[in-house]
Amino acid sequence: MLVEIITIGDEILIGQIVDTNSAFISKQLNSIGVKVFQITSIQDDREHILNALNEAKDRVDLVLVTGGLGPTKDDITKETFCEFLGDTLVENQQVLTNIKQIFKTYIGREPLPSNLSQAMVPSSATILNNNHGTAPGMWMEKDDTVFVSMPGVPYEMKYLLTHEVIPRITKKYNRPHIYHKTLLTYGRGESEIQEHIKSWEANLPEEIKFAYLPSLGRVRLRLSATGTDELGIKNAVNQQMDALYNLLQDIAVGYEDEATIQERIANILQKKEASLSVAESCTGGAIAQEITAIPGASAYFKGGIVPYETQQKTNILGVPANIIAEHTVVSGEVAASMAEHCTKLFGSEYALATTGIAGPTKGDATDEVGTVYIAIATPAGVVSERFSFGKLRERVIAKATNKAFEMLLKEISKN
Amino acid sequence: MLVEIITIGDEILIGQIVDTNSAFISKQLNSIGVKVFQITSIQDDREHILNALNEAKDRVDLVLVTGGLGPTKDDITKETFCEFLGDTLVENQQVLTNIKQIFKTYIGREPLPSNLSQAMVPSSATILNNNHGTAPGMWMEKDDTVFVSMPGVPYEMKYLLTHEVIPRITKKYNRPHIYHKTLLTYGRGESEIQEHIKSWEANLPEEIKFAYLPSLGRVRLRLSATGTDELGIKNAVNQQMDALYNLLQDIAVGYEDEATIQERIANILQKKEASLSVAESCTGGAIAQEITAIPGASAYFKGGIVPYETQQKTNILGVPANIIAEHTVVSGEVAASMAEHCTKLFGSEYALATTGIAGPTKGDATDEVGTVYIAIATPAGVVSERFSFGKLRERVIAKATNKAFEMLLKEISKN
Repeated sequence: MLVEIITIGDEILIGQIVDTNSAFISKQLNSIGVKVFQITSIQDDREHILNALNEAKDRVDLVLVTGGLGPTKDDITKETFCEFLGDTLVENQQVLTNIKQIFKTYIGREPLPSNLSQAMVPSSATILNNNHGTAPGMWMEKDDTVFVSMPGVPYEMKYLLTHEVIPRITKKYNRPHIYHKTLLTYGRGESEIQEHIKSWEANLPEEIKFAYLPSLGRVRLRLSATGTDELGIKNAVNQQMDALYNLLQDIAVGYEDEATIQERIANILQKKEASLSVAESCTGGAIAQEITAIPGASAYFKGGIVPYETQQKTNILGVPANIIAEHTVVSGEVAASMAEHCTKLFGSEYALATTGIAGPTKGDATDEVGTVYIAIATPAGVVSERFSFGKLRERVIAKATNKAFEMLLKEISKN
Repeated sequence: MLVEIITIGDEILIGQIVDTNSAFISKQLNSIGVKVFQITSIQDDREHILNALNEAKDRVDLVLVTGGLGPTKDDITKETFCEFLGDTLVENQQVLTNIKQIFKTYIGREPLPSNLSQAMVPSSATILNNNHGTAPGMWMEKDDTVFVSMPGVPYEMKYLLTHEVIPRITKKYNRPHIYHKTLLTYGRGESEIQEHIKSWEANLPEEIKFAYLPSLGRVRLRLSATGTDELGIKNAVNQQMDALYNLLQDIAVGYEDEATIQERIANILQKKEASLSVAESCTGGAIAQEITAIPGASAYFKGGIVPYETQQKTNILGVPANIIAEHTVVSGEVAASMAEHCTKLFGSEYALATTGIAGPTKGDATDEVGTVYIAIATPAGVVSERFSFGKLRERVIAKATNKAFEMLLKEISKN
């Protein structure tokens, strides 16, 4: 069974927003064995919507449409669906009640006529109740193809997809099982990895797909299989993955599907009943932000400091001024001292520190743009390492953040 | 002139990555008057690629393709282009030289045969030199349609698009001018805004498009026009925008196209020769991270502290323990004290502080999940405000971050 996602909205086509909805939908569908064949982004335009619906109808079994369901004049998805289906809009009482309830509970005023117009739906549509907003989801059929229309607001779409759409898909369609396993590696490029594993790759069974996914100093290696025998495909993928892991154990850091690196760090620290703090100069809060994005971070995260101005490294954090004077502010010695003083300032067992030159200019430093030192303080001592992350500020910060988590995971994984 | 973007790669269709390339390309094209008609994401599959190229050929004048150009076996874009064009792969000396140079300068080893195979290109292709990687860009034609193939790695694609593709587009095609202006508002929903401006909207000239873009407590209102008379369309949009601004001046915070809110804050602080520091509890570093993402932040940003554990607010930041005991840690008094002590700790004129309950559990607090207090300390005093940002951790953090920047902009804009 094949799916197409159609996202409607000029804001995607003029680059005003990034389409994160499609990735979320694809991931959810994938996990229940449904394959997304194509994603199509089109304008809020009647003719273009009609064309896209007609093309998708010939390509796939199920079409998931997001966007164009707001209360304002620029939203024309419902009217266009009526034209496509040969249907008319009728007022739906269930939706009307939901709209009034949402206004009463969350907004505290009477709905306007335009809000109430969101209760107008194609007469043949099955309503999918939207607990998080006023635009309903709609399940429609034409010939043998199912069309589902959802709002484009991400958390409303997510609610509808997981609570209403996916349960209906699993009930209606027979689906094969899909199984992916992704190995995270760092330190070597994809061509070097390919060279190293080429005889393994050449002997992969045809039913197992293999992909290289390079990004920011890492290469992820994904094995996938699809079939009706759930246990069979899982075993086949796992067997190949074990062989791959053995070939790459010096650069493998774990499997992506199990947990993110931040979640694994959180689990290990909680098991150890140990705490963490961070001192970030060039990463500017990016590391603290990723740590605190995980629910329950307060169980092990004491806090962070961003001593962005050089003198704050001394004033607040306590890095001796003579270390900075002797080694410059971007140095392994300063990174190590920052990490060490961070454990003292926050009273944590572990600390992570970054100092570097994110660019585009060098600031107080003498080193090249892209130079970053990362240090990890543990009860056993401090380790620090030097990196060159290129010339682009955004990438320097992102790579330093990734690398810091990798180093931290490595250190806290030692007894 | 119309463009279609085709992104090739299973990783998008299984939701493993979010397609940020398309938004970047769309934004760049838009700024030179080129309209993206459709974005299509498809698999690394020969037949699917051929179908998508054929369909796009009938729809648009220029097709920009990203992805599938790596050195590994799963990348089949070049071979498939040859089939589509009736062409064959030949070794290109310019690309070969570039590959060897990149390995010599950045990687420090000899390229492998698979790396050298990236010099094989369709014989009819014009090569677009990729300074940032080994996969070349390619400019190809079939009948009257131009096809450009670029790597999917974002910074390589960005380099090729801005340095090679856009200059060729501006030379080859006559383009109309496109002008957008987007007003940022906060504090009212889209239907309430529509109700308030309905007579203005009803009288908008037909050639001016208007869109509501709601997100996270804000609504952006976009006016657009396309035409050959650059000054004419600009004046027409600006005139309507002035009228709209007047109708909404109580909720308008500025125009999006001029600069982001973070850039505007940076500009104002530099003009004032004033400095900023931040104390973030519930936002966990997200605000510092956005400030330091902007090049040159060190000119006005002294640093930040994330006193995540309650006692760190007293120990490091100096918030009196009795204020916390009396008012609880999530309170306007604690936010105000955090901001005030932050100016002292970092020696900055301005400081911003957040304390709240991001959820999903309440931690040390007695208030409801989603409650956030934000305070701004200025030389004139401290202001603090209470917000309820709902139940979802990710959204609470994002909304608090947005709101903090809005409050900061408001305060630093006063004399």
